[in-house]
Amino acid sequence: MRIAYLGPQGTFSEEAVEIYRASLDSGRYGAFTTGSAHELVQCTSNAEVISTVAGGQADEGVVAIENSIEGPVNVTLDMLAWDVDLHIKGEVLVPIIQNLLVRYETAEAGTGAGVRAITKILSHPQAVGQCAAFLNRHFPSIPVQYASSTALAAHMVADSRESWAAIASTRAAAQCGLTVLLPSIQDKDNNVTRFVALSRDKDGPNTGKCKTSIVFATEHVPGSLYRALGVLNLWDLNLTKIESRPAKNQLGNYIFFVDIEGHREDENIRDALTMLKKKTFYFKMLGSYPTA
Amino acid sequence: MRIAYLGPQGTFSEEAVEIYRASLDSGRYGAFTTGSAHELVQCTSNAEVISTVAGGQADEGVVAIENSIEGPVNVTLDMLAWDVDLHIKGEVLVPIIQNLLVRYETAEAGTGAGVRAITKILSHPQAVGQCAAFLNRHFPSIPVQYASSTALAAHMVADSRESWAAIASTRAAAQCGLTVLLPSIQDKDNNVTRFVALSRDKDGPNTGKCKTSIVFATEHVPGSLYRALGVLNLWDLNLTKIESRPAKNQLGNYIFFVDIEGHREDENIRDALTMLKKKTFYFKMLGSYPTA
Repeated sequence: MRIAYLGPQGTFSEEAVEIYRASLDSGRYGAFTTGSAHELVQCTSNAEVISTVAGGQADEGVVAIENSIEGPVNVTLDMLAWDVDLHIKGEVLVPIIQNLLVRYETAEAGTGAGVRAITKILSHPQAVGQCAAFLNRHFPSIPVQYASSTALAAHMVADSRESWAAIASTRAAAQCGLTVLLPSIQDKDNNVTRFVALSRDKDGPNTGKCKTSIVFATEHVPGSLYRALGVLNLWDLNLTKIESRPAKNQLGNYIFFVDIEGHREDENIRDALTMLKKKTFYFKMLGSYPTA
Repeated sequence: MRIAYLGPQGTFSEEAVEIYRASLDSGRYGAFTTGSAHELVQCTSNAEVISTVAGGQADEGVVAIENSIEGPVNVTLDMLAWDVDLHIKGEVLVPIIQNLLVRYETAEAGTGAGVRAITKILSHPQAVGQCAAFLNRHFPSIPVQYASSTALAAHMVADSRESWAAIASTRAAAQCGLTVLLPSIQDKDNNVTRFVALSRDKDGPNTGKCKTSIVFATEHVPGSLYRALGVLNLWDLNLTKIESRPAKNQLGNYIFFVDIEGHREDENIRDALTMLKKKTFYFKMLGSYPTA
């Protein structure tokens, strides 16, 4: 089986796809995948991971969907809602620890001298957001350049001859031969990114401890969201997530991504969602899968 | 009065602050501001606009809060909820039309030759997101470099000697002496950015056609959001917006930004929000202001 993910080596996505690959081999997702060879397909963006699975160049894909600090990964939510018909068949949680990485030459005179020598900081926009207070405090006037992944930022620093720094994982440091100048620089603890495993046709197995993800839009009339949530409340369903995104047709129109405890095969979920479809003018099932 | 905004000249924020300044002079926000001189204070990020107002280096600030395609401006929502105590006293809607701008030398051989000559595209991440399908279709392999504003991207292209392109407004093109190679390249019509005017101590006047913005968090128990919305439903209040953001303490905990039709001085809004405070464990009034 071919599994697409956001490369290069050293990304948190690589960590997620390896956790997912291990759980496939453990049989967590049923016998059909156990023992098969899982070839990884490197992509250069989250959008490419999703379109690679949708287009059949990979069988499955692992892609970031939300972070506990920075919030939703917009491109993932928007593509799942509008552009592709894929099933979420699993989820993986990866704790995110960001570090300030420099070349050995920048670090060798000590931490203080290394910090003062830095002329530019490179990272992915999400990682920059996760370290915003740190950067404001210690590097208020140093330019920040965005890269398409934290690992690519580390590669760019390693390949340069400049006193640049990358915000990335210790995994990226090890792979690029960079030195950790300052460890664990993210603004908040509890920094976790949630990844989902996508398939063209399969949901995850019903293990008895599952989640079901849906997306819907209500009519733009007073109380419509309240009534939609009332359906879920009536069946005593527990929401573990609700996330709004613009409907993109008019300011003030939203679609809602909701995760519910339970599997779509469960009778109460099936009945509640049958009713919810009637109460919404757009509804899409995204899939059921074992809770991480 | 000093009004902070995201510069340099040519940004959509500049357009917003000029619309706001004109509405101040028209007396829309009451007599206290009419006729006063309104000096503009240029900032280099949305975060700086907000902290400039909170710190007293400006009296008011105009800052982007959401876009109809890309969704919320996370830094604005997060700072209003957690970092500062400011009042929203007005809102401004600015239609966003993005264009592909190049130097005259790149464009002079014609549009097709100009497009083929482009080696790099520069813009603000939000603008890149708004033109994502356009870029995928026409420039799948051309690198995109992020800049801190669309106007800065235009300045960088104008100052270079390269065949670069910027995604920015026609206003930026005029100010930097750039040529519009391809006009109106955003993926969707109805691309509107909503800006809010912030003050340390004043809400907007009650004109009879107002909005009130609040942010709250419910307890992490089943049905808590449903019950909170039930309070607003009980008082027949009309929600014009609901937006979730991570509470940042744990994946799956959210705070909700809600806009309601009406002014906080209105009796039904006051009564409903008094009850809502009792039903939520975090509640913050962000302000009431005339609807744009």
